[in-house]
Amino acid sequence: MSKLFLGIDLGGTKVKMAVVDVKGNIIEHTSFENCFDSVPGDVVSEIVAKAKKFVNFKNLAGTGVGVAGDIDQENGIVRFSPNMSKWRNIKLKTLLKQSLPQPIVIDNDANAAAWGAYWLDARAEVKNLLCITLGTGVGAGIICNETLYRGATGTAGEIGHMPIDYNGPECNCGSRGCIERFVGAPYLSQNAREAVIAGKSSTMKTLVNGNLGDITPHTISKAAKLGDRAAIDIWRDAGEKLGITLAAVINFVNPEIIVLAGGVSKAGSLILKPIRDSVRRRAFKKPASACKIIISKYTQKLGVVGAAFLTR
Amino acid sequence: MSKLFLGIDLGGTKVKMAVVDVKGNIIEHTSFENCFDSVPGDVVSEIVAKAKKFVNFKNLAGTGVGVAGDIDQENGIVRFSPNMSKWRNIKLKTLLKQSLPQPIVIDNDANAAAWGAYWLDARAEVKNLLCITLGTGVGAGIICNETLYRGATGTAGEIGHMPIDYNGPECNCGSRGCIERFVGAPYLSQNAREAVIAGKSSTMKTLVNGNLGDITPHTISKAAKLGDRAAIDIWRDAGEKLGITLAAVINFVNPEIIVLAGGVSKAGSLILKPIRDSVRRRAFKKPASACKIIISKYTQKLGVVGAAFLTR
Repeated sequence: MSKLFLGIDLGGTKVKMAVVDVKGNIIEHTSFENCFDSVPGDVVSEIVAKAKKFVNFKNLAGTGVGVAGDIDQENGIVRFSPNMSKWRNIKLKTLLKQSLPQPIVIDNDANAAAWGAYWLDARAEVKNLLCITLGTGVGAGIICNETLYRGATGTAGEIGHMPIDYNGPECNCGSRGCIERFVGAPYLSQNAREAVIAGKSSTMKTLVNGNLGDITPHTISKAAKLGDRAAIDIWRDAGEKLGITLAAVINFVNPEIIVLAGGVSKAGSLILKPIRDSVRRRAFKKPASACKIIISKYTQKLGVVGAAFLTR
Repeated sequence: MSKLFLGIDLGGTKVKMAVVDVKGNIIEHTSFENCFDSVPGDVVSEIVAKAKKFVNFKNLAGTGVGVAGDIDQENGIVRFSPNMSKWRNIKLKTLLKQSLPQPIVIDNDANAAAWGAYWLDARAEVKNLLCITLGTGVGAGIICNETLYRGATGTAGEIGHMPIDYNGPECNCGSRGCIERFVGAPYLSQNAREAVIAGKSSTMKTLVNGNLGDITPHTISKAAKLGDRAAIDIWRDAGEKLGITLAAVINFVNPEIIVLAGGVSKAGSLILKPIRDSVRRRAFKKPASACKIIISKYTQKLGVVGAAFLTR
């Protein structure tokens, strides 16, 4: 029988769990809500209870967990999570070891997603891959020489805080003009609200019934697909700016493929085309033409599958 | 007897050669002039003739060459060099194989320097190192998981063309606001000339006897050490800007150490202090405090020793 793995995507609002086969197929899955104030012990109990209900629980060859936060991979500790206030120096691996199939590997969620993209989108056929998760924040996981690259303190991949304009607007991180400050979901939504307020987009206004607080990147995509000029411009601008960062990392690390994932990437060609145009204008020709830039076909399951595959 | 290696630093104006021992000591060395129009065959003949004159020629365990250009490391081919017009698709490894000790390894000069910094400055005690060469251009070599990282097409390391200001001044590469456009030697010299013309630096004017064309980064360092305000400001500004790029790569690749080398790095603390201040303000605390930033103690010999060590 083919090997099966348990993958857990432990996010601040939701915990996704799945039994995954070696090809990345999801055999069984479940999920439950998580919140900013969740108690680690409770979440662990819930994870274990749900895992034991999987039909294939006895056949699992290992457990991988991707956590939204700063992780000590070596010791399986969640040092800190910006989205879960009580998760500070939680020995997650130790807590899970008693009840879940070993080996158990804990990593950052962006790393897990990159590992998932490496196996699913790139079919493990490349040596160097960058997976950029576009959501509230902009994060990345790096595959270097066919393995996850974590850096000196396990924090490699903070691509969102590379500046494109050192005199630009202040970023939450304390620096200025970081790419996340331009293309993070909240900033895209803010641009859209400003466009509506300036009377430039009746479509977006209609889509949220005038409740501007309801505007999300999904709204902007919908409007753009309906031909709304302001919405199209927001995606074009976001793509151009992301392309500047991608050109920089293409020059610097010369990857074979960049996979875009996360909610904002669902804008599809609305953002991908201006990204590619911007990269073409900005990056060196040779590394640029050698680097494929794609949107993951598996955004929904990259997290769990990547987590499961951490144990392969 | 301890092993000896031949190291060759093939630059556009000079070819440096040395016999290097396993500790990185230079046992014998020589050099000759090179120029923009040099004929590859002539340079190869000269290299071979000089190598054969080394007392230890018969005892060499390999040959490494660092070339200023775009290199196909696998096949030992110099694809292109911006500083040597006739070096296009030159099969350097094949040309040298008949006459020089094997194995023969050809690589980019920034990679060779990084490999040298890894063995000399970091004593091979780290896993991840970035060596940034500050000269006419700004280049880098990347050590990732204890080995040279070359990327998909062997061009990784072009840190000079990461932008810090996407609307900034045009760069030779076709993009805008690249860090090289601010801190490359010609731009530093230009800033100094402008300061003199604006009547802000009598010291620099005196140092070059009024011949503004003679101003180099060395002039600016000299003046700064004499207390010249304009010169100090040029270094402070260069350090601040370089620090922005370093903060970006510290966030992104989380290296254990960044070694600065090349002529411009000779400014020492004049540039190092503002770099460190800027990194402290801009980068995430954890990766920043885990990353040492130093100026190589071995700038003069990084190229040859690194090249020699490519064959270890």
